[in-house]
Amino acid sequence: MNEINRIYGDWVAVDWGTSNLRYWVMHSNEVIHSGFSSLGMKNLNQDSYETILVNELNSFLNPSKTTTVLICGMAGSRQGWKEAPYLSVPCKPPEWNDAVTVECQDSRMSVRILPGLKQPNPADVIRGEETQIKGFLAKDKNFDGIICLPGTHTKWVRLSAGEIVNFQTFMTGELFALLSQQSVLKHSVSKVGWDERIFKTAVNEIMCDNKLLATKLFSLRGESILNNLSDFEARVRLSGYLIGLELSGSRPYWLGETVCVLGQDEIAMAYETGLKSQGVLVSRNSNQDISLDGLKSIYNWQKGMN
Amino acid sequence: MNEINRIYGDWVAVDWGTSNLRYWVMHSNEVIHSGFSSLGMKNLNQDSYETILVNELNSFLNPSKTTTVLICGMAGSRQGWKEAPYLSVPCKPPEWNDAVTVECQDSRMSVRILPGLKQPNPADVIRGEETQIKGFLAKDKNFDGIICLPGTHTKWVRLSAGEIVNFQTFMTGELFALLSQQSVLKHSVSKVGWDERIFKTAVNEIMCDNKLLATKLFSLRGESILNNLSDFEARVRLSGYLIGLELSGSRPYWLGETVCVLGQDEIAMAYETGLKSQGVLVSRNSNQDISLDGLKSIYNWQKGMN
Repeated sequence: MNEINRIYGDWVAVDWGTSNLRYWVMHSNEVIHSGFSSLGMKNLNQDSYETILVNELNSFLNPSKTTTVLICGMAGSRQGWKEAPYLSVPCKPPEWNDAVTVECQDSRMSVRILPGLKQPNPADVIRGEETQIKGFLAKDKNFDGIICLPGTHTKWVRLSAGEIVNFQTFMTGELFALLSQQSVLKHSVSKVGWDERIFKTAVNEIMCDNKLLATKLFSLRGESILNNLSDFEARVRLSGYLIGLELSGSRPYWLGETVCVLGQDEIAMAYETGLKSQGVLVSRNSNQDISLDGLKSIYNWQKGMN
Repeated sequence: MNEINRIYGDWVAVDWGTSNLRYWVMHSNEVIHSGFSSLGMKNLNQDSYETILVNELNSFLNPSKTTTVLICGMAGSRQGWKEAPYLSVPCKPPEWNDAVTVECQDSRMSVRILPGLKQPNPADVIRGEETQIKGFLAKDKNFDGIICLPGTHTKWVRLSAGEIVNFQTFMTGELFALLSQQSVLKHSVSKVGWDERIFKTAVNEIMCDNKLLATKLFSLRGESILNNLSDFEARVRLSGYLIGLELSGSRPYWLGETVCVLGQDEIAMAYETGLKSQGVLVSRNSNQDISLDGLKSIYNWQKGMN
């Protein structure tokens, strides 16, 4: 690229989570470059964050000015780059002035990290999803109700008048990953596969009998050995048992409510199917870059661009 | 050792499980040598079993006769050394004539592998514990009731008139290992620790509300971050939640019954505590080598020594 025509970023949006890093270089409110890396918080020590960022962004940083890098996610945790102390619910999602600034060696960058949210009782925490909620509210300012953010740690969040009222986390996604990849079930569970009827049956089965989780899990192994249960069906049933147990536990969130499920992947679809099987009205927000929407909303506010 | 005084084994008892191998070299019905190795079924291919056994036993094998090696456990599974097809419950524990013989290169050994048990409905399987049950019954021939074998996959077994009537497996131990060592909770859970009061409270909490498992798990992380929950208490509560859920699910096994918990470790003690907190009469069989008791009972029967 000819240096004279080089376009630098005005600012950079970053979602830096436990397992990976996603970023978007912004120019005139458009994405001119985006990147993904598996260098998440869990693989890093405090000193490596700046180096990684400079490596990724080097050619997009204007040498003659300071570019803002706005970060959400686990980079702001105590084990991350710099702790951005939690805001306490009920509250609005974090804004520009809630972010902490990080001293950088490289004078081309000015880094700010957004805080997560905490709930004292029941004790619970969020880091990253608060910015997705910000992005969701940027498109749907008057939403009042429940949003469900499926993932490694699925979050159920009650929104009212633009505030996060309360929330609850379920470790369902992490349980699924551990059981399907690292337990004895890995021999009996396929890597992909989906069937609505099998899934709904498993959801109903566990919702009728929550206490049988740990034995129903092993029954997938037993049925695989004795009854030739297919790896594909075992996968769908494992998913149904775990999501079904979560739907039992999260009933106070969704009962009689309209629920918006955030996400475009198979997991979001599974939650939608499970909720609908319980008679819940579900909408699905399948915007792929809802974290980016949140970061844009926060950055543009301080620029007076909202 | 002087070759003239060398004592060879009469026979060798082997418990070859998923994760490790234990064996006892027997002479005149006494153990003259025992060994442990982490070379369990999950780390082996079919060809390596004989080599490992010869390495371990070499100096105890009489070159001028054939020594019987009697094996129980996962070495007899389809992924093991040679498949020993399951017996179907209701049945007595496997005996000498139920074992399969394995062809060996080394003529000093004659290897027999005992079968596990299967239950068609609900589909469930056992490999290894059936020999522990044999050992238990060898000492307590008239036992009628429930035995609980805590472990990676805890087994609840109903015994009557010397037969295994039915059984049920719970993946509780494997869930505990995965969650405490490989999930986000590993940052909040200590490696050791026990407190009866905290454990009982956690057991009762989950037994009153089975559906909250996946959120109570994450609450250990939340309380650790926000309320300085100690790693030690988090460990005990994690154990209580998982064992409590199992006790809810296994109620048809223990309600109104006398239960014998097999094992001498902390896990067996936890099950005993949990059951007693529900008003169950519990005895504990803390014989360390109950698999060996079973193997001895089976070997001696064919020698007419019972």
